[in-house]
Amino acid sequence: MKARVHVTLKNGVLDPQGKAIQHALGALGFSGVDDVRQGKYIELDLAESDPDKARAAVEEMCRKLLANTVIENYSVEVED
Amino acid sequence: MKARVHVTLKNGVLDPQGKAIQHALGALGFSGVDDVRQGKYIELDLAESDPDKARAAVEEMCRKLLANTVIENYSVEVED
Repeated sequence: MKARVHVTLKNGVLDPQGKAIQHALGALGFSGVDDVRQGKYIELDLAESDPDKARAAVEEMCRKLLANTVIENYSVEVED
Repeated sequence: MKARVHVTLKNGVLDPQGKAIQHALGALGFSGVDDVRQGKYIELDLAESDPDKARAAVEEMCRKLLANTVIENYSVEVED
């Protein structure tokens, strides 16, 4: 079973990496880019075959390791 | 208009960051994690209001800056 996790900075948290990308895009001639935010995308292959159990396990992984919940949000999608 | 970009390592390209996550999850007691791959997730706010033009612009941004197309794949989603 596959799980996909998105970890993104909470609103209001400064994102210097996103700002760097925005600046670089401007330097390359791309205009009209109002904002850029960069997050992490993590794909997990799980042995678990029950979607609910898999989701619960991945959410615990997010809280314990994958996301810093003080400054980051996470979302989990589970698929067969 | 918002665009979301996923940049992931191509199959066969070593992912030491993913392996580190997998190892750390094992050390935290999460069993049954067969594989972990980490990619990047980028959200862009664009002034462009035409979805087709926005997608074309973001795909060019991916080729020129956001992704290293030798070792990475990218996918673009555009939404209002």
